[in-house]
Amino acid sequence: MMSGIGHANPLTAYDLAELRRRRSVKWREHPGDVLPVWVAEMDTPLAPPIAEALTAAVARGDTGYAEPGALPEAFAGFAARRFGWRPDPASVRLVPDVMTGIVEVLRHVTGPGGQVVVNTPAYPPYFSWIPKIGRRLVPSPLALTAQGYRLDLSDLERRFAGGAEAFLLCSPHNPTGLVFTDEELLAVAELAGRHGVRVISDEIHGPLVYPGTRFVPFATVDGTAAERSITVTSASKAWNLAGLKAAVTVYGPGAGAELAMVDDEISEFSGLFGVIASEAAFSEGEPWLDDLLAGLDANRRLLGDLLAEHLPEVGYQPPQATYLAWLDLRALGLGDDPAEWFLRRGGVALYAGPMFGPGGAGHARFNFATAPEVLTEAVRRMAAALRV
Amino acid sequence: MMSGIGHANPLTAYDLAELRRRRSVKWREHPGDVLPVWVAEMDTPLAPPIAEALTAAVARGDTGYAEPGALPEAFAGFAARRFGWRPDPASVRLVPDVMTGIVEVLRHVTGPGGQVVVNTPAYPPYFSWIPKIGRRLVPSPLALTAQGYRLDLSDLERRFAGGAEAFLLCSPHNPTGLVFTDEELLAVAELAGRHGVRVISDEIHGPLVYPGTRFVPFATVDGTAAERSITVTSASKAWNLAGLKAAVTVYGPGAGAELAMVDDEISEFSGLFGVIASEAAFSEGEPWLDDLLAGLDANRRLLGDLLAEHLPEVGYQPPQATYLAWLDLRALGLGDDPAEWFLRRGGVALYAGPMFGPGGAGHARFNFATAPEVLTEAVRRMAAALRV
Ligand SMILES: Cc1ncc(COP(=O)(O)O)c(C=O)c1O
Ligand SMILES: Cc1ncc(COP(=O)(O)O)c(C=O)c1O
Repeated sequence: MMSGIGHANPLTAYDLAELRRRRSVKWREHPGDVLPVWVAEMDTPLAPPIAEALTAAVARGDTGYAEPGALPEAFAGFAARRFGWRPDPASVRLVPDVMTGIVEVLRHVTGPGGQVVVNTPAYPPYFSWIPKIGRRLVPSPLALTAQGYRLDLSDLERRFAGGAEAFLLCSPHNPTGLVFTDEELLAVAELAGRHGVRVISDEIHGPLVYPGTRFVPFATVDGTAAERSITVTSASKAWNLAGLKAAVTVYGPGAGAELAMVDDEISEFSGLFGVIASEAAFSEGEPWLDDLLAGLDANRRLLGDLLAEHLPEVGYQPPQATYLAWLDLRALGLGDDPAEWFLRRGGVALYAGPMFGPGGAGHARFNFATAPEVLTEAVRRMAAALRV
Repeated sequence: MMSGIGHANPLTAYDLAELRRRRSVKWREHPGDVLPVWVAEMDTPLAPPIAEALTAAVARGDTGYAEPGALPEAFAGFAARRFGWRPDPASVRLVPDVMTGIVEVLRHVTGPGGQVVVNTPAYPPYFSWIPKIGRRLVPSPLALTAQGYRLDLSDLERRFAGGAEAFLLCSPHNPTGLVFTDEELLAVAELAGRHGVRVISDEIHGPLVYPGTRFVPFATVDGTAAERSITVTSASKAWNLAGLKAAVTVYGPGAGAELAMVDDEISEFSGLFGVIASEAAFSEGEPWLDDLLAGLDANRRLLGDLLAEHLPEVGYQPPQATYLAWLDLRALGLGDDPAEWFLRRGGVALYAGPMFGPGGAGHARFNFATAPEVLTEAVRRMAAALRV
C-alpha cells in the first residue's frame, strides 16, 4: 500500500532493553541474559485500537466482572470479512481462554475415559489437560513427507474407527504451522460423520495465516460433522492478549443447544480487559494485523536465511501460518531435548520438542514474533554455542 | 491525618453518567435506567498506584501470560502490616480468582461425595460449585440473635461430628458482614482439629474491615487446624479488580507441601493485569484503602439513616466488614424474593436473598460501594415503589 499511515512493522517497535521490562512469563521465566523465543507471546506493542480501549477502561476504573458485551458480534464480523464464515453471534460464547474452553467442551461431549484424537506433535497442554479430566489422548501422527508435514487421513480413520469420541483438531496446526486445505477438512468431516466423532476445532492461530494460503474454518465445510462441531478461538495469539483472559467458543447449528450452556458456567471467570481488548481487535484490529503479518512474513524468511547460513543442518519448513517454527535439530546430535542444550550453552530459550509428544524428540519450537535483531541474535547464539 | 493529599473519598469520584459507560457486569446486566446495587463491584476509580501500573503495562504491550512475580511478597507484606500475619511468601500461590482457588483446593482436600460445611446464608456460587465438583454442601446456619448474626458453634460441632471433611469458612462473612473474633476462631480451630476437618478460609473481604473491629486471619489462631488450613484471598474486592483475574492461596505450614502444587496447574490461567494490579494494591494501595474505608463507613451509616427514614420496617445491622448490607425485608410482605419485586417495580437491582441459600428468603443484599447520591436514590426508589 502507498499510504504510510499505520503501516509500520509492529515487530520493530521495541528493543531488548524495553522488552526486558516486561512482566509476562516469556520475559520472566529465565535469567535476564537469556533470549526467550519459547512461549507464544509476541514482542510487539498493542494495536492502537486495543491500547486506546484499555487505557480508557483504566481511566474509568472499569475493572469489575466480565460479560460478553459485543464480543460475539465483533468475532462474527471478523470471521465474515476474513474467512467468509458467518456464525450466528448467538452461537458465540465467552470463555476465559482457549484451553479452558476446550477442557469444558470435552467434559461435556465425551464420557469418562473417552478417547480424544490429537494430531502429533501437538500443543503441550493438550497432553496434561486431557488426562486431567479423565479422558484418553490418542495421538494421530502427522505424516512427514518430503514437502513437510501433512494430515494423515488413513491414520485418522484408524483412530476414529478405534472408538474415538472426539477429534481435537488444531487448525492451523501448532507447532508445524500447517494450514489444512478445504479438501483435507472435507475428508475429516466425512470420516468424523461416518464414525460419529465430535470435532472440536482449536483455531486460535486462524488469523495468523500468511498471504498465499487460505484458512478454512472447520465450521464452514460441508457435512453434519461441521454442523455438530465446536470451534474454540480467540484474539490472544494474533493480537498478543493471552494475559487478559478472553476467548470464544462457537457452536455449530447442530452442536446441540444445551451445549452452549457449558460456557454460561465459566464465562464469569473471563477477564473484562480480555473482552474489551478482543472486541477492539476483532472489530478494528485488521489493519494492524495485516502490518503484523507482513513483518512476520519477513521474519519467517529471515529465519530461513539465517538458518541456511549459520545452521545448515537444521530442518526448517517455513510455516503457512503462526509465528512458530518447528525446527528439526536431530542432525546436530544434541539428543532428545536440544532446547535444554541451547538454554544451557547458548542462552537461548526455545520450547522443548519432547513436550509436543510423539515426534517431538530432537526438535524444538522457535517463536519468531520478535524484532529481526533479536531473531538474528538468537540464531547467532545457537550457532556460536555449537562452535564451542 | 492533616495532609489533604490523596485523602479524597473514592466513592464520590464518578457520577451516574460516567458509571453507565462501564462495561462490567454490574452496569450491563440490566437496562440503562436500573440502579445496580447487586454484584460486589465498587463504583470507584482505581487506586492511583494501580492505574499507573496498568497504564504502563498497556504502553509496554505487556499482555502475555501471567506469572506470580512479586505478588507473594507483596501479599505477605500487606498481611504483616495490616493483620500482623507473616505468611512465608513461598506458601503464597497465584490462582486466577478466589472461587477457582477454593474449587481446586476442595478437589484435592476432600474426596468424591465429601461433605463441605458452609455457614448460611452464603455467597451464592458456593451452592453451585460445590455440587459441580461432586462434593456435598452442608449448611450450618449462623445464629440470629437480638444483636444480629453470630457463629453457632454448637451447630458447627454437630456438622463436624456428622462426617464433614472440610469447613469453607467465609471470614469476614458475606452477606452478613460479620467479623469473627479471636475466641470464635480459636473455638472453630479446636473443633476442626478434634474432628479432623480441613478449614479453607475465604478471606477476600479481609481488607474491608471497619475501624473498631479487628480482623483475625484464621491462619494466625493457635492449633493444628490453623496450621493445616488454606486461605484463599485477593485484592479484588478491596481494590475492585475482579475482572483482571488474580488471587492467592496461602498454605499453612502443616497444609502439606504437595498441596501447594495444586496451583501450579491453574496459575497459568491467571491474568497478568490481575497480578500487576494486585501487586500494586498490596504494596502501595493502603492509603487509598483507608480513604475508601472512610467513605464506606460513611455510606454504611447513611444507608442506616435512609432506611430508618424511608423504610423503617427493613431490618439492617451495619456490617463490621464488607460493603454489603444484608437487608431483612420480610416485614414488607413482598414474598421470598423482594429483589425481584424491587427490580420490576422500583428499577433497583439488589442481589436476591434466596440465592444465598437457607435463611435467604425475604432478604436481599445491597451493595453500598457507590456514590452517596446513588445510594440515596436507590433507597428513595425502593420507598417510592412501596408507596404506589
Ligand atoms: C494451538 C493452541 N491452542 C491453545 C493455546 C492456548 O490458548 P489460551 O492461552 O487461550 O488458553 C495455544 C497457545 O499458544 C495454542 O497454540
Ligand atoms: C465471599 C466471597 N468469596 C469469593 C468471591 C469471588 O471472588 P472471585 O471473583 O475472586 O472468584 C466473592 C465475590 O464477591 C465473595 O464475596
